[in-house]
Amino acid sequence: MTTQYYTASSLDGFIATLDDSLDWLFPLGDINETGYPSFIKEVGALAMGSATYEWMLRHVINAEGREPVSWPYAQPAWVFSSRRLPNVEGADVRFVRGDVRPVHADMQKAAHGKNIWLVGGGELVGQFYDAGLLDELIVQVGSVTLRSGKRLLPRRITSPSFILESARVIGPGFAELRYRVPRG
Amino acid sequence: MTTQYYTASSLDGFIATLDDSLDWLFPLGDINETGYPSFIKEVGALAMGSATYEWMLRHVINAEGREPVSWPYAQPAWVFSSRRLPNVEGADVRFVRGDVRPVHADMQKAAHGKNIWLVGGGELVGQFYDAGLLDELIVQVGSVTLRSGKRLLPRRITSPSFILESARVIGPGFAELRYRVPRG
Repeated sequence: MTTQYYTASSLDGFIATLDDSLDWLFPLGDINETGYPSFIKEVGALAMGSATYEWMLRHVINAEGREPVSWPYAQPAWVFSSRRLPNVEGADVRFVRGDVRPVHADMQKAAHGKNIWLVGGGELVGQFYDAGLLDELIVQVGSVTLRSGKRLLPRRITSPSFILESARVIGPGFAELRYRVPRG
Repeated sequence: MTTQYYTASSLDGFIATLDDSLDWLFPLGDINETGYPSFIKEVGALAMGSATYEWMLRHVINAEGREPVSWPYAQPAWVFSSRRLPNVEGADVRFVRGDVRPVHADMQKAAHGKNIWLVGGGELVGQFYDAGLLDELIVQVGSVTLRSGKRLLPRRITSPSFILESARVIGPGFAELRYRVPRG
């Protein structure tokens, strides 16, 4: 069981624009050609922040100009938010707030030995890192720069550094970098 | 002859801290194990901004606690600065300011068919990019996050995106990503 931050980022370290747009991301390649299909099979529980959840509501579930689609995850999802957010029909979504440690313990139980996916954003993942609960970083580095936006991981982490385990070309639009997070 | 931005960056897109420190960089690996030795052989001229030049004066040429060392580049170097900066004995350094285009033309002549290295910083490289003069991006992505600092390339470049040509593990501390810059 590992706790993984799997995400896409620009080359300059942003996971979204300041207004939470991912429009720069989708032209870069097909998610099914990345490691995502094999990654998601091993996920037993996932966690995300409120901005990520609201992005999904707006752009995936209730996207403009088409019929609502169903929640894409079979796994239970924990959503961190200090606000009341709408539910999605048929989705196993659990709203929580505060300390990530008891939530991680619950996720671990629910995952039945499979991995925990931290979907984002960066600040929530930073809280798991601070608590010593982040094991791996898997970043699809898009071949773009955004200049400003939401940060990949708003922490100074230099010593010990991450441990690069693999680097590969997914296509002209993406490199996949996989890191292990050493335990202090 | 290609114009290349060869640099090291943190995973979150910073090439130095806000106070121009590279102390986070050196523990990550040995430069001689990267592509640098073969890269520098093909360089015929180089350009840098004043902060990069002053960093070299402070940390390479006149580093505290030891005898001054000689300028490391045999190639002619153009230094962009609006201020008067000290010379280095025995160095072929040409101080310039303003539009990068005529300087690039001079560099091209001096390089005799070899490559032009844009050492940095990001803003100077951005000016070469804006003028359509940047051909390649070669980034040694360090396995760290800095949270803040001097930007890799302070531009929004999404469409056309860069074209990833290779990704490789240099060691646990570095991935090397090579990109081609499409010509508009």
